[in-house]
Amino acid sequence: MEPRKKLSIICFSGDFDKLVAAFTLASGSAAVNYEVNIFFTFWGLNAIKKKKGRVFTGKGFLARFFGFLMGGIDNVPLSRLNFCNISPKLMNYMMRKRNVASLKELIDASIAVGVKLYTCEMSMQILGLTINDFIPEVNKEVLGVAKFMEISQGGDRIFI
Amino acid sequence: MEPRKKLSIICFSGDFDKLVAAFTLASGSAAVNYEVNIFFTFWGLNAIKKKKGRVFTGKGFLARFFGFLMGGIDNVPLSRLNFCNISPKLMNYMMRKRNVASLKELIDASIAVGVKLYTCEMSMQILGLTINDFIPEVNKEVLGVAKFMEISQGGDRIFI
Amino acid sequence: MEPRKKLSIICFSGDFDKLVAAFTLASGSAAVNYEVNIFFTFWGLNAIKKKKGRVFTGKGFLARFFGFLMGGIDNVPLSRLNFCNISPKLMNYMMRKRNVASLKELIDASIAVGVKLYTCEMSMQILGLTINDFIPEVNKEVLGVAKFMEISQGGDRIFI
Repeated sequence: MEPRKKLSIICFSGDFDKLVAAFTLASGSAAVNYEVNIFFTFWGLNAIKKKKGRVFTGKGFLARFFGFLMGGIDNVPLSRLNFCNISPKLMNYMMRKRNVASLKELIDASIAVGVKLYTCEMSMQILGLTINDFIPEVNKEVLGVAKFMEISQGGDRIFI
Repeated sequence: MEPRKKLSIICFSGDFDKLVAAFTLASGSAAVNYEVNIFFTFWGLNAIKKKKGRVFTGKGFLARFFGFLMGGIDNVPLSRLNFCNISPKLMNYMMRKRNVASLKELIDASIAVGVKLYTCEMSMQILGLTINDFIPEVNKEVLGVAKFMEISQGGDRIFI
Repeated sequence: MEPRKKLSIICFSGDFDKLVAAFTLASGSAAVNYEVNIFFTFWGLNAIKKKKGRVFTGKGFLARFFGFLMGGIDNVPLSRLNFCNISPKLMNYMMRKRNVASLKELIDASIAVGVKLYTCEMSMQILGLTINDFIPEVNKEVLGVAKFMEISQGGDRIFI
C-alpha cells in the first residue's frame, strides 16, 4: 500500500492574508487525506497564541515589545497594506459576505480535519514564549529543525 | 520511461520582484522540460488580470477597493520599497538595459513554453472575480485546493 | 544505499528575520546529513555580499541605487517593521540574550556544516554584480534556472 501523502508547511508569516492561504491549503489538503503538519515559527506563532487581552504574553520587556509587533490572532496585519487595521477586517467581511470561512473558522477546520500544529523551539526561545502561551490543540512537543525535517520527511515542504 | 518532472508554483504575491522570480523559475524550468503549473491566488491574480483601464474589475465596492489595493500588472509594487512606483520602473529599466526579459516578456515566454496558468477559486470568490477578468491564456478550469493538490501531485510545490 | 537527502532553498528575501529562518533551516538540515544548497537571488544576495563600507558594490548609478535599497548584511531590515533599524538590532540582542546564534554566526555555521551557497545569474546581471562582490565561500559557479533545477533535482525546494 502506498504511504499516505504528506504536506508540511513552515508558517513563518503572521500576515492575515498569508495565514488564510496557509490554513486553506492545510485544511484542503487534509480533507483529501494528506497528512498535514504546520510548523509555526516567528510571526506565524501569532496564529496559534492564546487570546489574552492584548496578547502581551512572554516574559520580559523585549518579549513584550516583540509581542506588540506580533499582535496576536485578532490583530494580524494584511501583508500588502494596513490602514489602521481596516484591510483584515474588510477581508474578513468579504470572506463572510461571499460565504468563505473566516481565518478563525479555517484554523478550527484545520484542527478538526487532523492538521497537526507544531511550534519552533528557537523562535520560542527568542521570544520568551512557552508551550502554555498557545492554544491547547498545539502539539506539546516543541520542534527544532532536525525533528521538523524528520517529521516532514517523505512529503512536500512549503514555506509561507 | 521516467515520468516528466513537475513543478507547481503557488503564486500568492503580487509584488513585482516576486512575480519576476516566479515567472523566471517557471519559464526556465519549462525550458528544461519540466511540466510547470502556476496557481495564482490573492495578490498573485494581478499578474494575469486583463488590462482594463485602472484594472478595477470585480463586482461591488469592496471588490473594487481590493482591486485598488491589488493594482494590476502595470502597477505592481516592489516588495521592498516603492517610492511613488519608481522601483518597479527602475527595475524594468535595469532589466532592459542588461538585456534581461521584462515581466511582461517573462509572462509571455512562460505561456510560450507551455507553463499552465490556473486561478484559485476561493480568492476569486473573496474578490468577486470571474474567469473572464483574466487573460485568455489562463486555464478555464478554476481550481480549489483539492484539485490543485491533485494536479501538482508527484512534483515539487513552491509558495511565492 | 539510499541517496543522501537534499534540500534546496531559493533565498529571495533580504529581510533579517527571513534570513535567520533560511540559515537556521539550512544549517539544521545539514547537521542531520542533508545535502543543502542555497540559491541566492534578488534581495537575498545581500546576505552573502562582502562587507565594503556601505556596500555600494556593483557598477553604475542604478546598481548603486539598488545597492542602497538592498543595504548589505549589517543593515538588513526586519520584514514586519523597522523603526530606524531598531528591530533587527533588538532581535539580534534577544537572540544573544537567549543564547541563540546571531545571523552572522548562523551563516558561518551553515558554511562550516557544508551548506553550498550559489548565486543567481539573472539577478546579478540586473544588479550589475559579479562573483567578486560576494564572500569567498560562495560557489564560483553562477547558476541560471536550468542549472539550479538540475542541482536541486531529487530533493525539496523551498522559496524564502
